Amino acid sequence: MKFKDIHSVLKTQILNGVYPVHLPSTRYLAGELGVSRTTVSLVFEQLAAEGYIELKQGARAKVAGEFSLKPDDKRGGVASIPSVDRLPRLSGMGEQLSQLSMDMKYRLEPVLYDFSYGDIAKANFPTRHWRQSLHAAMSSSPFTYDYQDPAGLAVLRNALQGYLWRARGVNCDPDQIIITSGTQQALDIVARLFLDRQRRVALEDPCYKMAKNLFAASMAELIHIPVDEQGLMVDHLDTIKADLVYVTPSHQFPLGGTLPIERRMKLIDWARQHGSLIIEDDYDGEYRYDMKPISPLFNFSDADNVMYISSVSKILAPVIRLGFMVVPKGLVDVARKAKALLDRQSGVFEQIALSHFISNGHYERHIRQSRKHFADIRRRLLSGLTDVLGNDIRISGSAAGLHIVVWFNRIPKRDEAGFVAYLRSHSVGIYPVSGLFTQHQTTDCAGFVMGYSSIHADLIHPGLIRLQALYRAFVEPSNR
Amino acid sequence: MKFKDIHSVLKTQILNGVYPVHLPSTRYLAGELGVSRTTVSLVFEQLAAEGYIELKQGARAKVAGEFSLKPDDKRGGVASIPSVDRLPRLSGMGEQLSQLSMDMKYRLEPVLYDFSYGDIAKANFPTRHWRQSLHAAMSSSPFTYDYQDPAGLAVLRNALQGYLWRARGVNCDPDQIIITSGTQQALDIVARLFLDRQRRVALEDPCYKMAKNLFAASMAELIHIPVDEQGLMVDHLDTIKADLVYVTPSHQFPLGGTLPIERRMKLIDWARQHGSLIIEDDYDGEYRYDMKPISPLFNFSDADNVMYISSVSKILAPVIRLGFMVVPKGLVDVARKAKALLDRQSGVFEQIALSHFISNGHYERHIRQSRKHFADIRRRLLSGLTDVLGNDIRISGSAAGLHIVVWFNRIPKRDEAGFVAYLRSHSVGIYPVSGLFTQHQTTDCAGFVMGYSSIHADLIHPGLIRLQALYRAFVEPSNR
Repeated sequence: MKFKDIHSVLKTQILNGVYPVHLPSTRYLAGELGVSRTTVSLVFEQLAAEGYIELKQGARAKVAGEFSLKPDDKRGGVASIPSVDRLPRLSGMGEQLSQLSMDMKYRLEPVLYDFSYGDIAKANFPTRHWRQSLHAAMSSSPFTYDYQDPAGLAVLRNALQGYLWRARGVNCDPDQIIITSGTQQALDIVARLFLDRQRRVALEDPCYKMAKNLFAASMAELIHIPVDEQGLMVDHLDTIKADLVYVTPSHQFPLGGTLPIERRMKLIDWARQHGSLIIEDDYDGEYRYDMKPISPLFNFSDADNVMYISSVSKILAPVIRLGFMVVPKGLVDVARKAKALLDRQSGVFEQIALSHFISNGHYERHIRQSRKHFADIRRRLLSGLTDVLGNDIRISGSAAGLHIVVWFNRIPKRDEAGFVAYLRSHSVGIYPVSGLFTQHQTTDCAGFVMGYSSIHADLIHPGLIRLQALYRAFVEPSNR
Repeated sequence: MKFKDIHSVLKTQILNGVYPVHLPSTRYLAGELGVSRTTVSLVFEQLAAEGYIELKQGARAKVAGEFSLKPDDKRGGVASIPSVDRLPRLSGMGEQLSQLSMDMKYRLEPVLYDFSYGDIAKANFPTRHWRQSLHAAMSSSPFTYDYQDPAGLAVLRNALQGYLWRARGVNCDPDQIIITSGTQQALDIVARLFLDRQRRVALEDPCYKMAKNLFAASMAELIHIPVDEQGLMVDHLDTIKADLVYVTPSHQFPLGGTLPIERRMKLIDWARQHGSLIIEDDYDGEYRYDMKPISPLFNFSDADNVMYISSVSKILAPVIRLGFMVVPKGLVDVARKAKALLDRQSGVFEQIALSHFISNGHYERHIRQSRKHFADIRRRLLSGLTDVLGNDIRISGSAAGLHIVVWFNRIPKRDEAGFVAYLRSHSVGIYPVSGLFTQHQTTDCAGFVMGYSSIHADLIHPGLIRLQALYRAFVEPSNR
């Protein structure tokens, strides 16, 4: 590597904020790059002359003030994209992905009154006990630092088995539990094991978009089954043949229905008759209000055609990448192999930490506290909405979960995106529901998902007051 | 749920070690299961009468001594496997996986003198600094606890970009870096984006088995290219057309060759001509001894037909699930979407911790120390092997990496497995090389992979003495 190259790369790196304060030493760079220290020193002098760095006798080279970055600064502009026509063709999935537009929330500018969903406020994260558990995991663990069972550590699977039974009535063998990196990876394992061209998946419509996208990308044919206030309309399956059916029976996403017992029995019968596998996503089965616990589908079958999926992310936070699936015994071996080929194993320290966290009772304590906390926030949100918007709205799915869907009777569906953008420009974040539908949206008015798990309780009231004012201005533009 | 069910499940759980010390309170169980506290109390009394638990007035129910477990105890016997013929057909990948026999090391009984490879001794893990970094990540992080960019946090990608340039001369934009859950997931993203039926992958023979298994399971056709002491025999590609070629140029796995510059140029030319993508797995490019650093393939191209993959697991430990890929700019978008659909994002605390760990210089310091440490261990292993086995062996691939391959001239290939089993039964662990070959094993004698990254330095000498004795007994059975 030559003077010119080293100079140019270091300059780019300084501009990109690679070095928060100091540059590496000349000795280190010389050793790593296989050049003399003199060369590196000359480059440093050039950079200093140009004002990128500051040199002081006997001290490490320091990045000039205007180029040193706070670590959360995002730099690195939009890359110019060269043509890729000399690359091999993409796979079927690759093609699907290149067409797919994935709207991801992390790209949005944050707003003050953000009724976002799917996440949990940082203040609600059990930092102290999680840190203790991680500490315990790193200090006294009896494990080697080698690869472990790809299905997950036995301690964690035992702890989860106990939790699942106590909290959800799920009665399984710890060997049936496969630890995954969140619900999404559990869905991917399902996709890899069962989906292909000419396979068919029945899905709720509307549904969780990341599942729909994944199944579509796996080249399967999707069959969209409508949903009412009780969840999946199981009768619609009568004339349908599908390899898999993906459902959220505890709390339909996003409309919030809880699948009644008759539908559960019927769904299981249907799956039996057709040799179909039910994928039960119990994504927030822990959050229910004013209602009795409902037994998961998994418990109604002999557990050989239901796969139960759940996640820790909805309890702790999406930053913790742990979920799990409970698989029929005949599929344990193949699911373990799939997990091994996908990423070998989930983070081991986190697995041990979670097993401590559960065994010491923190997990269930945290759930009880969160349930109480969110029940209170939900109450405030619901009564506040009624106060400020009264009969102009209808609310779906408030009996469980961490979000509701609010239908605005006087806003036509075509104005949904406009209303969201208008609110957002005035610091209120709500999320359009129609993007979650595929074929079966019957309402003509606009609907929005409003979450209450990440907004600060004290912001709900002022946020709703502002929502009211913006709503009035939106439907009666003369007031704008 | 009835008395009988609760009783039976609790009993099974106690036998499986779900409760290390205490049972949950009657109040808690009653609330979660939707039964009266009296019912739970009756179950407890029954369990106490049967000797499974101990009850004391005013105290929590306690698991009886013989059933309380140490947390690392593995219980839960082999599940009886019911037939799955009522389940939907497996996908192509599912079928492949159900045929695949995956020998996983975690299943083996540990032995004292274990020359295992692919892992790193716990003593070598930078526990203190990693804990500090995790602590910093959990304390002062400016991030929300929400989903982030699936490609990884900007702080980490910036830090890695700097590291890659300093340590490996890789000059890329931070936007080209996708953080993955280890190398295996990076390979899976490649498989998802490019592999399908009728796609072709050229691979080294012998090669890294988890890559071969993954590509095969993705239904692609595998083309096995022989390897010599300099790595992939690039000339063999002349008459071949393949969509991808997967190589380990820094240190061919497992034979240890380093691909010379002429072959690198030729490989890149070939890929250009055929519109192929090179997957460069730089899996232990950091560990090199007595040789100059070699520039990765990524640096030779315009970086539009090389994808560079590396891992943190080989530096810190496989328990840390972080790796990364540097992708051609035209593939950034599609790779980010694939990552999102596979598992949304890698562990956020670990990402922040790693960025701290790199930015504070711990990462490169740790590599320097490890390189020195392993160079010393390698020296002991090599000289020890020569001392005890002299001309009876040949050694491949000692110039880089964390393992060597030892060929035993007097043991025929057919006795490879027998020798391994014989050694293992006498507490010496070495690993057969022939399972890593597919078509091109030309040697007639048995070869073994011996790693030196996880065995304690003080065990090498006595381990080799024992190996010598066992070897003599094996080849001259009269001495047994």
